[in-house]
Amino acid sequence: MTTPASITPTTLAATLALLRTRRPLVHNLTNAVVANFTANALLALGAAPAMAEGIDEVADFAASADAVVINLGMLSPKRATVMRMAAVSAAAAGKPWALDPVGVGAIPPRTRFAQDLCRLRPTAIRGNASEIMALAGEAGGGRGVDSGAQSEAAVAAARRLAGSTGAVVAVTGAVDYITDGTRVLTLHNGHELMTRVTGMGCAATAIVGACLALGGEALTSVAHALAITGIAGETAALTALGPGSMMVAFLDALPALDPKRLRTG
Amino acid sequence: MTTPASITPTTLAATLALLRTRRPLVHNLTNAVVANFTANALLALGAAPAMAEGIDEVADFAASADAVVINLGMLSPKRATVMRMAAVSAAAAGKPWALDPVGVGAIPPRTRFAQDLCRLRPTAIRGNASEIMALAGEAGGGRGVDSGAQSEAAVAAARRLAGSTGAVVAVTGAVDYITDGTRVLTLHNGHELMTRVTGMGCAATAIVGACLALGGEALTSVAHALAITGIAGETAALTALGPGSMMVAFLDALPALDPKRLRTG
Amino acid sequence: MTTPASITPTTLAATLALLRTRRPLVHNLTNAVVANFTANALLALGAAPAMAEGIDEVADFAASADAVVINLGMLSPKRATVMRMAAVSAAAAGKPWALDPVGVGAIPPRTRFAQDLCRLRPTAIRGNASEIMALAGEAGGGRGVDSGAQSEAAVAAARRLAGSTGAVVAVTGAVDYITDGTRVLTLHNGHELMTRVTGMGCAATAIVGACLALGGEALTSVAHALAITGIAGETAALTALGPGSMMVAFLDALPALDPKRLRTG
Repeated sequence: MTTPASITPTTLAATLALLRTRRPLVHNLTNAVVANFTANALLALGAAPAMAEGIDEVADFAASADAVVINLGMLSPKRATVMRMAAVSAAAAGKPWALDPVGVGAIPPRTRFAQDLCRLRPTAIRGNASEIMALAGEAGGGRGVDSGAQSEAAVAAARRLAGSTGAVVAVTGAVDYITDGTRVLTLHNGHELMTRVTGMGCAATAIVGACLALGGEALTSVAHALAITGIAGETAALTALGPGSMMVAFLDALPALDPKRLRTG
Repeated sequence: MTTPASITPTTLAATLALLRTRRPLVHNLTNAVVANFTANALLALGAAPAMAEGIDEVADFAASADAVVINLGMLSPKRATVMRMAAVSAAAAGKPWALDPVGVGAIPPRTRFAQDLCRLRPTAIRGNASEIMALAGEAGGGRGVDSGAQSEAAVAAARRLAGSTGAVVAVTGAVDYITDGTRVLTLHNGHELMTRVTGMGCAATAIVGACLALGGEALTSVAHALAITGIAGETAALTALGPGSMMVAFLDALPALDPKRLRTG
Repeated sequence: MTTPASITPTTLAATLALLRTRRPLVHNLTNAVVANFTANALLALGAAPAMAEGIDEVADFAASADAVVINLGMLSPKRATVMRMAAVSAAAAGKPWALDPVGVGAIPPRTRFAQDLCRLRPTAIRGNASEIMALAGEAGGGRGVDSGAQSEAAVAAARRLAGSTGAVVAVTGAVDYITDGTRVLTLHNGHELMTRVTGMGCAATAIVGACLALGGEALTSVAHALAITGIAGETAALTALGPGSMMVAFLDALPALDPKRLRTG
């Protein structure tokens, strides 16, 4: 596996600067558990979050945003309808959109809906190993919303999923893998304490949306987003005393991120 | 613009003491992004938050609370129905209610609903410049839920809105303006880092509700509420390392607020 | 009132170790105000939270979880339907479930629904004095979601409620009382600052769910859960500067809890 020359501290610094200058509006269809943390992560990074999901508002919001992020946590039939509207609207407006298949594999209706959304051609998909394997049609061993599998095991599934959907697919874990179906990038940033803060993966996908909004190559955008998340996490872990201060320090780290901490595979 | 003698460190200290003694029950119809932060801000200040929004509960709750706060973030048709019920019930029971027109101006249905709610005669309205201008029927340049305009530009709109609705109207930003249509107060507390924490404006409106619940003159109550918010923000910024610790320090500052930090125009 | 020999620092340490080893999946039907804090408290403790509440997902999720927690905050008719499905499904699958009767007593429809849920035989019920008294059919003086009564006053009501429902019933406050209808345990851990953080009681009930999931005697499990909550609270209060840092320090304390701080009655 190789990481192209495009993922370097210099290009990452340029992406961070662009986020702060352009302040992309990222429209998140997400769940009540992580909505606050997601919005705060985007604000801390310099992006502008929006969370509209009223059935009479969502399509307009999605079309006017710079990127849309759809997160399947706490899915309901009504929220599924609204999410589909947002994805259709983003696609019609030529806006990138990212899918976070939270809990896919654990419960059949959610898996089917995620596979259905994939037909609307997301720009990127980010999940843990279980979720990506389930979305690609494999048994991944997920339990609740946590991964039962190592991220390496899901790389083959991710490549196939990228091939079938046209999305850049990322499997995050101790090592992150990002693929467009052909190339596979690996990232080694992050810290174990991130797994003790709810919504870290959801924040990562929101940051994917922010980076996609800048309009560069999707593979690079997704890799930059996951590098940002991982570097913020490992920076936070330097001072965190536990899961609570980890969450706080993660938000504090985002505006002052050191791109030189980037560790590619 | 003049600030009446009623807004002083001494009267602010009296309001703070009254909040802690009376513990007003503030009923918030708000959104999932800010619900936790709003409730924590009210608790930290000494007030008692409630967030009921079931269609069979909301009217009774609103009538029995000491004040109601209606926040339009994440509006949906169903939540609009419930919000209207709460406003009607508060008004019928003679309870003050405050409106936070989140995102008004960005999406037409939300703007129409906010204008519709204004006919139910809110006691106070607090928004950023774009929201207040849109609510008054002007193009304000809002983008998503953030303001695209400076708060000074919205003062004329705020005065007209106060005149047409009977509400005290506040435009918050680097400087806060509070008007009853005739008088205009200005406040200079606050800190730029407050814009990096989601729900700071929503917390301000909830605190407006808490101060209105005490039953004094509405113009003074709204000014005190925004002074509390601003002083807590600038106190928090003294120790915050970034947006995460800013949110935490804001809540820590509320129970120990120094009224002598008040800076009127 | 006596505390049996089963509630000791040694048995508490064993429960903590078991939580971290087994990582029980706790399915929470809860409200938007506390969802993030609840999930983070469970993660910090070593448990695995899930929050699914879609009508087509909830029954499967509840049956596959190790315990279910039903929290009545922000109740709506639709959420009531989903909660009943979760309780029925948990019971049918032989899984323990805990009820948090948030706000019961303040609003009649919520009280009736909580009493209705009690017929589905919860394994445990945890509330403040007003809530437990109202659930047992007495006037408790609740106001909004806060208790208007001292926890001692609710002990008789708790014993009757335990007798009529078969649940272990806990009344929490400055002193916690836990009863199976016959025995009454008392715990003296905790700190006043816990009352200034929204969702502390909800987190306690979620932790009750996590401890019930381990499968020991329910009376001991509930007592251990409330001891964990109280010890984490008083540990957090040693360093907290106010309500914001209290919330953070509470989460930080959970993975590093000192069982020797246990203070039984």
